[in-house]
Amino acid sequence: MKTTSKQNLLAIALVGALVFTSVHARAQDPLPAWNDGATKKSITEFVAKVTTPGSPDFVPVPERIATFDNDGTLWSEQPLYVQLFFAIDRVKALAPSHPEWKTNEPFAALLKGDVKAALAGGERGLLEIVMATHAGMTTEEFNQTVKDGIATAKNPKTGKLFTEMVYQPMLELLACLRAKGFQTFIVSGGGIEFMRPWTEQVYGIPPEQVVGSSGKLKYEMRDGRPVLVKLPEIDFINDKDGKPVGIQMHIGRRPIAAFGNSDGDRQMLEWTGAGSGARLLMLVHHDDAAREFEYGAKSPIGTFSDALMVEAREKNWNVISMKNVGQPSSPPNRE
Amino acid sequence: MKTTSKQNLLAIALVGALVFTSVHARAQDPLPAWNDGATKKSITEFVAKVTTPGSPDFVPVPERIATFDNDGTLWSEQPLYVQLFFAIDRVKALAPSHPEWKTNEPFAALLKGDVKAALAGGERGLLEIVMATHAGMTTEEFNQTVKDGIATAKNPKTGKLFTEMVYQPMLELLACLRAKGFQTFIVSGGGIEFMRPWTEQVYGIPPEQVVGSSGKLKYEMRDGRPVLVKLPEIDFINDKDGKPVGIQMHIGRRPIAAFGNSDGDRQMLEWTGAGSGARLLMLVHHDDAAREFEYGAKSPIGTFSDALMVEAREKNWNVISMKNVGQPSSPPNRE
Repeated sequence: MKTTSKQNLLAIALVGALVFTSVHARAQDPLPAWNDGATKKSITEFVAKVTTPGSPDFVPVPERIATFDNDGTLWSEQPLYVQLFFAIDRVKALAPSHPEWKTNEPFAALLKGDVKAALAGGERGLLEIVMATHAGMTTEEFNQTVKDGIATAKNPKTGKLFTEMVYQPMLELLACLRAKGFQTFIVSGGGIEFMRPWTEQVYGIPPEQVVGSSGKLKYEMRDGRPVLVKLPEIDFINDKDGKPVGIQMHIGRRPIAAFGNSDGDRQMLEWTGAGSGARLLMLVHHDDAAREFEYGAKSPIGTFSDALMVEAREKNWNVISMKNVGQPSSPPNRE
Repeated sequence: MKTTSKQNLLAIALVGALVFTSVHARAQDPLPAWNDGATKKSITEFVAKVTTPGSPDFVPVPERIATFDNDGTLWSEQPLYVQLFFAIDRVKALAPSHPEWKTNEPFAALLKGDVKAALAGGERGLLEIVMATHAGMTTEEFNQTVKDGIATAKNPKTGKLFTEMVYQPMLELLACLRAKGFQTFIVSGGGIEFMRPWTEQVYGIPPEQVVGSSGKLKYEMRDGRPVLVKLPEIDFINDKDGKPVGIQMHIGRRPIAAFGNSDGDRQMLEWTGAGSGARLLMLVHHDDAAREFEYGAKSPIGTFSDALMVEAREKNWNVISMKNVGQPSSPPNRE
């Protein structure tokens, strides 16, 4: 990715339609925020060979499936998962009517502000917090809560709206793939119902192309009107081993391209890579403390383990170093 | 539906592309197999008002979602569910290595040929049979088994391929809606992995637009290659109360049109109907013993209860009488 200012790299939230237009206007380079180099070349060569009729690697349009992790791949997951940020607010708001949370973990730790201790239970612990704080709401009420929250909530470190903390190069990649007939799915450990209210506006990805973790739902009548009520039970965790399962359940075809940034994405890349034909497999590596955050392999807050780096090297997955891929070059058009 | 011969009503399996072409060639009537009458008028008026720019009922393309039950709505479910037909074969084939099935129900009843007793446990019993007989297979192996089976298996009563037992009027309706920007989803109690290998060819519906019941899957490595293995556990039953849940999980938007034929579809129609704006809600009623099968309300094998008929009348859902909707008229073009 090009060496632009931290602000430009991170902070440009464009709706899909605008990105799409902008890509068409610069048909000679659909990826202007990506520096010329091996990574960009991998992308453009892959897209050309799977979409050029007559190419030995040609893939028919219905099979052009690309899957993207969300947290840390499409938008920033630092200094904390956005969904956790919302859950903390909700735990605080509901605490007066839940006196037991003062002593029950992970709620007690969260209420004391100790996020690290609260997350000691891993993804399941996080999901349990999320489920517990939204149980009893209908899907429509939850949808509205998320829409209202995401419209104003800001990253505590940068002071920007979370929806402004999306990666411009990835927006360009999404639009570039869609312009070539791809369906671009999100496949995230985050809550499916948490993402859907805003992914269409922010990424151009409609709800039916969002795969995520879920809680159980119950169909019932309220005041003579049918509703779906959120239950405090985990239905499915769409992370690690769960990602290929989520892909199979929701898409039913093996992707030909997959993009992630952490150990949670390993199995998605393995599953995608195990199909026959050309593949594009990429991991974003957050190693750029100057312009963004450094928390990849070797970092104490890292979710990109040394083992993942070894597997990536062995299997020739593209590791996108946020720091090193971009060589200083001519500034991007927008500067 | 028009009063054509039994053969023509039932037996015309065209791939989606052909139907699509045929619809375009007769632009003046995209639904030639439907008789002129109230039902056809409901369809054409609905499609016109939600797709005409400037109409007060206009619906943007991404929100044009239509959901279709499969068994009994898109293809024949008589004299038995096709998936059950396959499961019986499989139970017989596996019986030698499962001596316990001789005494354990529902397997014992199935092996004795008593389908009715085997299904006394309802949808869950049927799914348990299906899960048990495919446990340990990978999704790829199962996919191939279904593809091979569906290519040759024939309806025991009509002697036709199951894929020839699809309803021509519904193929036209699917194509007509897609030509107007709709996404046409299957939302069936049948197994999601059982339908996907053939729905694209038979209905023009791709795997990612098939919602169904599912078993649990496990990601694992076999000979160094990642696979998804089918476990003998039910994951989700996409029937009755489950249909709105399945719609929410897979699509994440409320449909504006829904089509079913039994009590299993009641909640899907209720959920679809509870949204604001124009709606098209239809139930196929199998009351035509002469040309097809009679098993609707009042029939001992019926799954269309009197209570459903009452609800349909109260809520003005369109009930498509297979016998009465079609008035004798000029024969369809293809005869």
